[in-house]
Parts: sequence; C-alpha cells; structure tokens
Amino acid sequence: MIIVMEPRATQEQIDKVVKAMENKGFRININQGDVMTVIAAIGDRRMFQPASVASFDGVREVKLIQEPFKLASRESQNEDTVVEFENGVKIGGLEKPVIMAGPCSVEENLEGLLEIAHSVKAAGATILRGGAFKPRTSPYEFQGLEELGLKYLAQARKETGLLVVTEVMDTNTVDLVASYADILQVGARNMQNFKLLKALGECGKPVMLKRGAAATIREFLLAAEHIMYNGNPNVILCERGIKGIDSHYSRNTLDLASIPIIKKYSHLPIIVDPSHGTGRRYLIEPMSKASLVCGAHGIMVEVHNDPDNAMCDGAQSLTLSMFDEMMANINQLIGRIDYDNNKALK
Amino acid sequence: MIIVMEPRATQEQIDKVVKAMENKGFRININQGDVMTVIAAIGDRRMFQPASVASFDGVREVKLIQEPFKLASRESQNEDTVVEFENGVKIGGLEKPVIMAGPCSVEENLEGLLEIAHSVKAAGATILRGGAFKPRTSPYEFQGLEELGLKYLAQARKETGLLVVTEVMDTNTVDLVASYADILQVGARNMQNFKLLKALGECGKPVMLKRGAAATIREFLLAAEHIMYNGNPNVILCERGIKGIDSHYSRNTLDLASIPIIKKYSHLPIIVDPSHGTGRRYLIEPMSKASLVCGAHGIMVEVHNDPDNAMCDGAQSLTLSMFDEMMANINQLIGRIDYDNNKALK
Amino acid sequence: MIIVMEPRATQEQIDKVVKAMENKGFRININQGDVMTVIAAIGDRRMFQPASVASFDGVREVKLIQEPFKLASRESQNEDTVVEFENGVKIGGLEKPVIMAGPCSVEENLEGLLEIAHSVKAAGATILRGGAFKPRTSPYEFQGLEELGLKYLAQARKETGLLVVTEVMDTNTVDLVASYADILQVGARNMQNFKLLKALGECGKPVMLKRGAAATIREFLLAAEHIMYNGNPNVILCERGIKGIDSHYSRNTLDLASIPIIKKYSHLPIIVDPSHGTGRRYLIEPMSKASLVCGAHGIMVEVHNDPDNAMCDGAQSLTLSMFDEMMANINQLIGRIDYDNNKALK
Amino acid sequence: MIIVMEPRATQEQIDKVVKAMENKGFRININQGDVMTVIAAIGDRRMFQPASVASFDGVREVKLIQEPFKLASRESQNEDTVVEFENGVKIGGLEKPVIMAGPCSVEENLEGLLEIAHSVKAAGATILRGGAFKPRTSPYEFQGLEELGLKYLAQARKETGLLVVTEVMDTNTVDLVASYADILQVGARNMQNFKLLKALGECGKPVMLKRGAAATIREFLLAAEHIMYNGNPNVILCERGIKGIDSHYSRNTLDLASIPIIKKYSHLPIIVDPSHGTGRRYLIEPMSKASLVCGAHGIMVEVHNDPDNAMCDGAQSLTLSMFDEMMANINQLIGRIDYDNNKALK
Repeated sequence: MIIVMEPRATQEQIDKVVKAMENKGFRININQGDVMTVIAAIGDRRMFQPASVASFDGVREVKLIQEPFKLASRESQNEDTVVEFENGVKIGGLEKPVIMAGPCSVEENLEGLLEIAHSVKAAGATILRGGAFKPRTSPYEFQGLEELGLKYLAQARKETGLLVVTEVMDTNTVDLVASYADILQVGARNMQNFKLLKALGECGKPVMLKRGAAATIREFLLAAEHIMYNGNPNVILCERGIKGIDSHYSRNTLDLASIPIIKKYSHLPIIVDPSHGTGRRYLIEPMSKASLVCGAHGIMVEVHNDPDNAMCDGAQSLTLSMFDEMMANINQLIGRIDYDNNKALK
Repeated sequence: MIIVMEPRATQEQIDKVVKAMENKGFRININQGDVMTVIAAIGDRRMFQPASVASFDGVREVKLIQEPFKLASRESQNEDTVVEFENGVKIGGLEKPVIMAGPCSVEENLEGLLEIAHSVKAAGATILRGGAFKPRTSPYEFQGLEELGLKYLAQARKETGLLVVTEVMDTNTVDLVASYADILQVGARNMQNFKLLKALGECGKPVMLKRGAAATIREFLLAAEHIMYNGNPNVILCERGIKGIDSHYSRNTLDLASIPIIKKYSHLPIIVDPSHGTGRRYLIEPMSKASLVCGAHGIMVEVHNDPDNAMCDGAQSLTLSMFDEMMANINQLIGRIDYDNNKALK
Repeated sequence: MIIVMEPRATQEQIDKVVKAMENKGFRININQGDVMTVIAAIGDRRMFQPASVASFDGVREVKLIQEPFKLASRESQNEDTVVEFENGVKIGGLEKPVIMAGPCSVEENLEGLLEIAHSVKAAGATILRGGAFKPRTSPYEFQGLEELGLKYLAQARKETGLLVVTEVMDTNTVDLVASYADILQVGARNMQNFKLLKALGECGKPVMLKRGAAATIREFLLAAEHIMYNGNPNVILCERGIKGIDSHYSRNTLDLASIPIIKKYSHLPIIVDPSHGTGRRYLIEPMSKASLVCGAHGIMVEVHNDPDNAMCDGAQSLTLSMFDEMMANINQLIGRIDYDNNKALK
Repeated sequence: MIIVMEPRATQEQIDKVVKAMENKGFRININQGDVMTVIAAIGDRRMFQPASVASFDGVREVKLIQEPFKLASRESQNEDTVVEFENGVKIGGLEKPVIMAGPCSVEENLEGLLEIAHSVKAAGATILRGGAFKPRTSPYEFQGLEELGLKYLAQARKETGLLVVTEVMDTNTVDLVASYADILQVGARNMQNFKLLKALGECGKPVMLKRGAAATIREFLLAAEHIMYNGNPNVILCERGIKGIDSHYSRNTLDLASIPIIKKYSHLPIIVDPSHGTGRRYLIEPMSKASLVCGAHGIMVEVHNDPDNAMCDGAQSLTLSMFDEMMANINQLIGRIDYDNNKALK
C-alpha cells in the first residue's frame, strides 16, 4: 500500500501515519520526494481491516499496489481453472469454447423449450440457458415461471443431454435452483449481492457470475472472490456489456478487452453474452466471433423458436435457423483458432 | 409507444406490426414519413408484457413515450409524498429538510455509538444512521455486527429519541431489520435486487432506496415502483453518486440535477448522501449545501467520534466537531431557503 | 421528428406547436394518447434550423426519427465507399483489410523510422503511420518534429512504397500536411474541431477521422458529415476506444460493436486502433483479431524499433519482432474470414 | 513517480528500470514488498519526456504521485488567481460571483441582442455572452454570424458597459476575436485543441476554458496549463457537465463536486454553465443556486428575448422575465453565502 501525503503535510502528520501502520503490522518505507512524501506500507493488506489511514490529517491518497483479490488471482493459482461436468463438458483453460444457448425465459410452452433445446444441441451447443426466475426492471413485466420453469429445464436436459444454466435471484431459492441446475447464474444486477454470493459459495454447484453494468474488472474479480472465499472454486465469469455513452444503437458496450485482461490477472474461465451485451440481433454473430478469437472460453446466446412472441428480449433473440447459420460459421472459426496463443497471456 | 420502421421496411412488414399491436389492444396511428414510417401504438404499455415487436422484421426501434413507472409518477399522484413518523419527523414535500447522521458501521464500542448519537442530535440531526449488515466489496473486510448492531442502534434510539435508518441486505433478514429500524435502507448495489424490493414492499416500514452506481433515473424510479407495487407507498429516494469518468479526485459523481428532475417526474422524497457521493471529507459540506439549495428533502452524512480508527470509510467521515461546525452553517442556510420555490417544479 | 407533449399540456399549447411546425413546412400528424399527445412532424429535419420547438410551453421532449447525418448514411448511398490510392491500395467494402503500422511519433532518428518502415512492410502493412504534429495532454511533453517529421515520412514512402497517414492538428497546417501525406488523420480530441473538419473537406486527400473519447456513433458520423458536406467523400472512420468505467487495466474501452453498427448505418470504411484503444502491448493482438473478424476494414498499430526509448507511448508499442509474429497470425486469420458475410449487414 | 513491477519480475528487470531512471536524473528508492517490488523515482517528472519505462519488461504499472500540471497548481501559487477587468469586474478568489448571461448565438436581429443585454444588466449580470462562431454537431445547423456577430457584441458592450465573452473556434480567428472580446471562450469540444490553446496563451486576453464532455479534472487542468505555459495566466475554468449514464432527462451530468475539488488543487477561478450542463430550462435555477453555494466564482446562463424563435438551444434558454425572477432569488442567496468558508478549502 502506498500512502501519498499532501505537499504541506507536517512531519508530525507523517510520523502519526507511520506509527499507526507499524502498529497494524506493516513494514514501512519512506520515499521522501521534493514536494511530497510517499509512505510504502508493506504487508498483507487483507489483514488491515480499517483502511482508515486515508482519514488522517495530511494524507492525500491511499493507493493499493497488490490487487485486493487473492483466490481469484494468477498469483495464487497459475494454472487455469477448468470447470468440469460429469458428462465431459469442460469450461476454461485451453478447452474448446462452450456454447450456451436457449430462450431468455422459460415459458409455459414446454414443447417450444424442447424444440429449442434439440435444435441448439444439433447446432453445437452443450449447455441450455433459460430463466425461471427473471429479474425485470419493471414490476409489470413477466417475472418467470419459477419452480415450474426449473422442472421444464430439467425435462429438456433429460431429453437432450444438455447441461442447464439458470439464474438464481436470492438466498431463499439457492437450494431450490441448485437442485435442478448444473450451473447457477448470478445476474449483472446481483453481482454485488453479497449475501447471495456467500450462499453460492456454499451451494456445491458451479456458478456463472455476470459482470455488473458498471463494475470495474477489480470489482468483478472481488465478487468472484466472495464466492470462492466461501468455499466454491468453480466460478465462471461472464462479460455482458457495461453501460456506455451510447445506448441508442446498442443496449450496452461489450468490453471485449476484458477477456485478455481477466486471463492475465485471473485463472478463472470467462465467457461472453453478446445477446445482452448488444441487445440487437444483427450484432450477435460478429460479436460472438470477436469474443472467441480474442480468447473467450465460450459464449451464451439467446435463441427462441418464435422471437416475435417471446415473453422477453425477443429483439435480441436469434431464431433457430439464424442460430444454425451462425454456428456453422463459428464452428469453422473455432476449428482454426490457435488456442496455444492464449497461453502467452499468463 | 412509437415503433420506428427501417427506411426499407415493406408494406407487409408494416402491416404485420400493426396487426400484432392491434391484437394486443392498442389503437394504431400511422405516421408515414418521406423516408420512414412511424407507428404510434396508443394504450397502456404496462398491459403489454412481451415488448417483442422490437424483434419483428423491418423494425428499427421501439421508443416509449409514457414513463414506464406509474405509482411513483406525478401523473398518478400530484401531491408530494410526505413520510411521517410517530415522533413528528416528516420527510418530503415542503417540510424542513431532515438530517441523517452517524457512523458508517455500528462497531463493538457501544459507548462510541451513543456519543455520536447524542452529539449529532445536539447538532440538529433527527435520524441516526449506522450499518449493522455491511455490504463490502471485498470478503476480507468487516461485514458488520449484524443483530448485535441492530440492538445497539435501538439502544441509541431509546437514549436520544433519534429515529434509526439501517441497511437490509437480503430477503432473509427483512423481518429482523424491520423489528429494530424505523427506516430500512436498500444499498446502491441492491437497487435492482428485485426479490428484496418485493419483500420490502410488504415490510410495513418506510424504505430508503439508494440509487445504483450506474442507474438511470428511470431505472431508479422503476426500482421504487417495485416496492410501491408490492404495497409500500413510503419510499424515500437517495442520490449517492454515480460512476463517472474520474474516480481520482472523488469516489463517485454526485448527480445533483437528479433532485429537481425527480421532483418533476415523481412525488417521492429525495435525499442526498454526500459522504458516499464524494468519499472525501472536505467535499461533504459544500455538497450538502448544494443539495439542500437545489431542493433535496434531506441529507445523510457519515459522522464518527474517531474516524482514524473507524471500521470503514474513515476518510469520508466527519468528526463530531466538524459535523457541529457544518451544521451551524447548514442550519443558517436551511432557514433561508424559500421552499415555496420548489413548488414550481411540479 | 416526434414532439412529445407533457401530460398536462393544454390544447392551446398543442395548437401552438402544430402551427409553428406547419409554418416551417412540416406535415403534421397528431397521435392522441390516453395520457399524452405526440405530434409527428414529417419532412426534412435538415431544413429546420431552429430546433427551438423544444422550448415551447407544454413540450416534454423532441425525438429525432431519421438519423441527422445524410451523406454518410446508407440511405443516401447503399454501396460501400472504397477509398482507392494510386498504388492500388483500397480501403473499405469487401476489400482485404489494410494494416497501418509505425511509430507513435516520428523522431529525430531517420534511420529508425526507415527500419520500422521496411520491417512493417515486410510483415504485410501497406500504410505507414507516424505523428509529425503530436497533440499532447501536457505541454511538457514532446510535441513532434513538425515539417521535418513530414519530410522523414515522405522519405520512408519513397524507399518503401508504403502510403503515409499522419495527423493534422489545425487549419493552418492542412495544406502543409496534405502536401506530404496520403491520408490526413484527425485525432480523437479534434473530432469536433469543426473548422478543421471544414478545411479537410476541401483538402483533396482522404481523411481518417478518429472517434472522440466520448462521442456517440451519431456524433461520430455527424463529424464525418462535416467533412463530406464540405466536398470530400473519402472519409475513413477509426474506432480507438471510448472512456469507460475502468482505466486501471486498459487506457480506453474499445467499442468493437461500433464496427457492425457503423456498417449498418453508413457506407464509410471503418478501421480500429487497438494501440490507443487499450494502451497495453499484450492486448494488441487479441483486439486486432477481434476487430478483423467482426468486420473492420483494417487496423492501425503502433510499432517501434526501440519502444523503451520511444518519445511517446512506448508501453503500447510492439517491437518489430512482436509485430512480425502478430502479423503471421493475422495474415492466417484474414485469409479465412468470409467477407461475404459482412454483406448481410447492409 | 511509482513504478509497480509484476509479481514475477526478475532482478534483472528491476535493475534495468532502476538504471534507466537514474540515467534520467531521478533518485531511486526501492520498496521491496512480499509479492511485488515498487520503485519510487523521485524528481521532476516534467523533465522526463519519454514515460516509456512503462514499456519495460516486468513493469505492471506507472503511477504519478505529483499532479502533472504545475502553473495551474496550488503548490506553485497558493493565492487565488483573480482576473480583473478595467471596468472593475473581478472573477475569482473571494470576490462576489459574476453572472454571465446572453443568447446562445448572436442573431441577425441586433435590436434583440440589445434588449437582452440591457435586461440582463438590469438583473445583475456584468458579462454578456453570445456566440458569433458556433460549433455545431451537424453541418446543416446555423454556424453563426462570424465577424458581424462580434460587431454586434461590441455594440452591446458600448451601450451597456457589459463585458463580452464569446467563443473562438480556431487559431486563424484568435486575433479577430481578441480584437472584439473581453474574454475568449474555448468550447468543450476544443478543450484539447492544443494549437488553439497555444495561440490563446499568446493572445493577451483572459480565456474561459470549458471542460470537455469526458475530461477528467486532471486533463482539464492540463489544458489550462497549456494556455498558462504559453504565457497567459488569466484562465477562467468553466464546468459545463460531462457525459453521464443518462441523457434522457438532462443533456449532461453537471459535476458540481468539481468546484471544491478544483479550488483545492488549483488557484484558478471556476464558474458553472448550468444551461449546457442540463439542457432544460427548469433546471437552470436550482443548479445555479447549487453552484454558487458550493463555491463557484460565477455562472453563465443562456437568456433570450424570444426562445421559441432562437437560432439555437431555445429549450435551455430562459426568457428575460424568467431570468429576472431567478436573479432576484440568486441575489438574495449570494448576499448570504459566507465566502470565508471557501478559504478553508486551500
């Protein structure tokens, strides 16, 4: 930790900071500049609960040097985390990217869901997505089928062999969702719902954590740290776009540089959701390809057999035939990506 | 709702949209431009669950005309909501602004809390703030005293007559927190934790809802709508800064224009938290004054008897004497604000 | 244009708006909703200088329907603009993507520039970049060699056959720069320097316009429109990252979705600058690949023979051997991209 | 300067950085942490043209400690800059805040301009604003009367005694504008037009520099530094709103905390433009009051005798009577602000 003192800080103020940090168990190095003094406090910042030295008189700024996440960092684990499932699907590392696909929400029409599931499987997906609990900006919108939706997803898994990823919205329903799903998804708006993250640390199933719409990469990895710290090493990260300066042409700004950045700083798998990341159907294919060539471990795409009558997000859902066509192009592309290049990022 | 068609949309595509919207119960008006066609669909958008017309071929964009929140809007209730408490404190409308003050988190030292409570009361506060459940970006930081903290707050209320506002983090603890607090606070990171909002709709106590760090005003008011829709009309909004382009000099960007904007579009009270909004002690007083003269119904300020040893956010906490001094200036200012001017905003 | 009236607008207020717009030559359609009235004013908005109807009493909002740029739009020209040079290089449409490479700034060491030029040409670049006039955030930094730098670039062109792209910073030097360069670059900070855009409209050479750090796509295309409106159809757009919520891990947020978006709304070529877009050397290759697979017409990359001693931006410059290695991978990738797919975007 | 090395940086890499920095004249302090090494390079960073050490192998990050602006900083000049004019008007320090008012653009109707000038003077303004050269997002909009507009402004000054502030858009017209105006304004889009800033450093008249729509405070002060470095100490800063996450309800996000922040880090005067900062007429008064109580040295407000027929920005212009009414309230408020409080910020 670096403590930058004000240009006019007194010696007394400097001494007070030094003494306080020494009392907390830090080693101290003083860097006396021409104008300002910089105090380096060396030691594990995580022991240092009250970062309150920032409040001392004469302190201008406190800067972290070491990243505050630990379990999620490359420093603590150099090997890529690969999340493995009983049926052989693997996510992360140098494994072939996974394709997650399915409707935004599970709807009352079970036949429709099964049709989608069979179709996306045939096109190359290995994981079925679909919301049973739906966070909605407005209380007047469809909130999901809840447990019935989970049953439908389980039925689709039984018929197709696809794994199931679905969202869990609060601590009360973690056990319920975990009893049906293969991967529990945390939505972007819940990325810092810390009680939920804690419960998911103890749920025994892999978790897919979506990046919050205004979350920095540090905050994103700290949210993953909450899950890992509470006992669950199987965290899959998901970039889904951040709020940008322009929501007129796309819903969010997909931050694809976050993929190689996260691969440098963390060993966790990272996938991309171009459907929520853009909100426009015609942008899904180019952004999916871009995600995969810059190193994403997979993509998650909204697909619906009848988008014009979908209960949510129809405008960003591909039809079954659009998805088929896109996957034909993507399967070609995946075959050609030299995944060893990604190794260089470590 | 306005449906903008692509410049090359066919008549068939236009007809399909028109028919679909008529089937949903909307009246249709066609605005045939020189280049593009704009379809106005008139009726209550809230009945229209699947906004999926956006997915139809030939549709460029769907624009809402009426704000999607209803209970929170000026259109549904022209009179300001004034939240009233048994001890006579009132928040909202043309009432004198309220001052909420206290430590970031309730700590083990009960005497310290009582000292703060007595001191802020003497300076003019009527509501004591303090976190018993603390959302923390890192799992390695102090997470709060939980129920013990609530008991301490209740003790401070008993001794001072101050009302108590404190955060609730998940659905599981709504009843617990509601049994101690006068106002239940929703943190910025939980603004779109919809299950929590639903539970708070049913909790029977006033709720203070903080604006999310990247929430638009529409999203903010829709979050309030969730609480109101589930039965609770006593929602107090709290502006606490949004993520800006510059976090070097201040933690967030306090969006003070949101105050008169919200007063135009909604009848709900709106207060400001300059402590989290800036994260710097020297900015609290100027931003508090600015908030009050542009119409805020109150401010919430972090105050600690010993910020250098606070368990969190020491750098943005005022000392007791700093708070005294600021309140002397603010009480002068409040006496002079002509609150009738605010009436004009409606 | 859509004029949304306030819920309580009077008939008189509505009539006043209608009359004013009719006087301006618009056809009027009234959409009478249950709560609000929406007035559609049909006609060419570009004729309508004073957009002042927004100031009328009772008006809530004025929304554009048609994009305000015209010459830059797909509606006015469906065929892709392809910028062609005498030596056969073409930028845009379905042409093979171009590679622009070279140092951030032209430095005093001419030999170094020539070494870079020969090297990037051998690796596949066809255009040499290098700044002779350097916009610098601080006045204490290197401001460029000015005309001497232009002479060096011309020398490098003579020896290698590469085209030259270089920045022009103000109206005074447009003629000078145009006498040396093949493409005149407008920096991100000058994207809305309208006098400069006007002068470039008359300069007779192709212009590469960089997107401003906070420019929406609409503003970006309107800046291109300024150049085109003043007589120059050869505008090449360049995405170089926008200010995001996180400048800790990358300098800017590269907005790659802007590529397919711009290809839908405009016929102009669009290239990507991953060097300024990320500011980190290890991110250049993955972001270059991502740019090309999602449809960019080229990339511009900073390359230096000795980045550790570069006069600017060393941290984001590739060495000659890094560039060689990256180009080997990219040439493979380019060969495989099915550019016909991009046709579908129109 | 602080150079943070990668966790796995070798001793050789560290030595290379140390040696390079010593060669540049810096004193070196090594802070050897448990995981990472931090090298403090002490000395004047402004001497250090190539910040290229960031490109060295093993370097994770380079952090500035001292602010990069010098002439604009409190460290180099503790006393507030007060810009004084021959007629006795003063801007900055503890002087009474100034009011700048007038139309967005100077229009062909000279009588209208004179009416506005007389009226705003009577209400308390001392400076007349009005654009003769108008930067416009679209080339199809009114671009200003140019020199004729300057003549009209001079005429208004002659008749009223008001000072004149007006925008200069490029280096070519600096002398022309300086021959008419008392204060030369740099628009937000030109904040980093460095050739223009340089020319204004030599123009001999005070300059009002508007903050760019995405400029950090550091970039803002560095832009002021360009003007001062080139010889002009009379720079007035102007906060006019930054691009935020929500442009639906207001045009920009007015960042009022920037006022006390800038007063802490710089001695330059800072005023606020609530008209462009919000773009909505009803927000001007509350934001003007908020600006003044948090320490702004003045405000600049758009006022028009006939906003419904203004050539630009009618929706955010106050009528003459609205301005009168607002000024009555503001004059009361100004009388009551205890400006000695602001002294504390230094």
